[in-house]
Amino acid sequence: MATRNAVVLLSGGLDSSTTLAIAKEQRFRLYALSFRYGQRHQVELQAATRIAQAIGVEEHRIIDIDLRAFGGSALTSDIDVPKGRNPNEMSDGIPITYVPARNTIFLSYALAWAEVLKSSDIFIGVNAIDYSGYPDCRPEFIQAFQTLANLATKAGVEGTAAIMIHAPLVDLTKAEIIKKGIALGIDYSLTSSCYDPSALGEACGSCDSCQLRRKGFEEAGVADPTRYCVSQVPA
Amino acid sequence: MATRNAVVLLSGGLDSSTTLAIAKEQRFRLYALSFRYGQRHQVELQAATRIAQAIGVEEHRIIDIDLRAFGGSALTSDIDVPKGRNPNEMSDGIPITYVPARNTIFLSYALAWAEVLKSSDIFIGVNAIDYSGYPDCRPEFIQAFQTLANLATKAGVEGTAAIMIHAPLVDLTKAEIIKKGIALGIDYSLTSSCYDPSALGEACGSCDSCQLRRKGFEEAGVADPTRYCVSQVPA
Repeated sequence: MATRNAVVLLSGGLDSSTTLAIAKEQRFRLYALSFRYGQRHQVELQAATRIAQAIGVEEHRIIDIDLRAFGGSALTSDIDVPKGRNPNEMSDGIPITYVPARNTIFLSYALAWAEVLKSSDIFIGVNAIDYSGYPDCRPEFIQAFQTLANLATKAGVEGTAAIMIHAPLVDLTKAEIIKKGIALGIDYSLTSSCYDPSALGEACGSCDSCQLRRKGFEEAGVADPTRYCVSQVPA
Repeated sequence: MATRNAVVLLSGGLDSSTTLAIAKEQRFRLYALSFRYGQRHQVELQAATRIAQAIGVEEHRIIDIDLRAFGGSALTSDIDVPKGRNPNEMSDGIPITYVPARNTIFLSYALAWAEVLKSSDIFIGVNAIDYSGYPDCRPEFIQAFQTLANLATKAGVEGTAAIMIHAPLVDLTKAEIIKKGIALGIDYSLTSSCYDPSALGEACGSCDSCQLRRKGFEEAGVADPTRYCVSQVPA
């Protein structure tokens, strides 16, 4: 089988980095796509660059998009990022860190690039188990985007290639994702998941994302390589 | 009935301007959204601003997005815009002026803004009759985006409001659109449809978009108020 191109959405966090490694394992030629979207945690873009290099991609593009223009989220406005929430309660309701239509926008750009690259494969690291309650991380959302993608594009209309949105983590727990990534040789110390890291890139340890990540390492029985900002870690 | 907010995609062309007037007629409070996306024809953004002012909107935002980053279209790269094609043959195949995933990206941004505005109504001026062969102007594409939108968002998940993608022009011919717009009082001299206008904003008269527009005015029996660049109009 000839190697095919895939566009992989890469935030620099644990999930998207694992997704990139899985796409590599499946022998795709990798085109990693990241966004500078006004997020507080731009440290994650440095992480994305490190991971893209470590895993080995054909090209890594960082696109500027202005989600701050609309606001509506703790990640793109001056609203405080919630800290110290109980991980078991995170899926009750949609948290304030939800960025309106973010994955829809990210996948739309991925679709544009895929179309230009003549790629019919897009990877996204969404996860419906430990998913923090975001509506656009659910399998039915991914399925609906795939349907849309096949109507939206030349390839879809001409029937030359059915576009597939791969979400290989969708049914995995955080612990399972970590085990998979370790098996694929990922160095998770290169990744960054924190919503509110220090200027040095240290994780706060108490936002939803830090807590889910830490719990994942514990449950996987793997030493957590994350650099935490000691003063911010709850006792 | 209380007035509701609607996000209206506004390019500054004939179709989106008519769509804006239709949304106004339906008593929506209007939030117009335009994009600076590396298009050759930035004159259309000036037209969008004029039309937003003339029709009267609550707010008009122009978002910078970089579709040139991906290329793949005569509208966002150095590929020549085709001229002098026969309008009856334009729907055979997808032309080089097609911008990959453009309407998917535009609608995604509209969805983000709608979510922040707590609006469940998005208007887009796509048209499947005189549609120049773009896959993302078809009714099935709009329907698929509506399905996606209701899975992608808080409102969709919480069941508080079903998002509706309004495409009021989808079944109209260009002549019918023009008649509708004239009845609503639109001054079409404010609009700009040309893919390759002169620096002064004059229309070339021979790209697909100019030809469809001109034919529309002829068939509607309405005087065409477009300013053409005389030297470029074919005999």
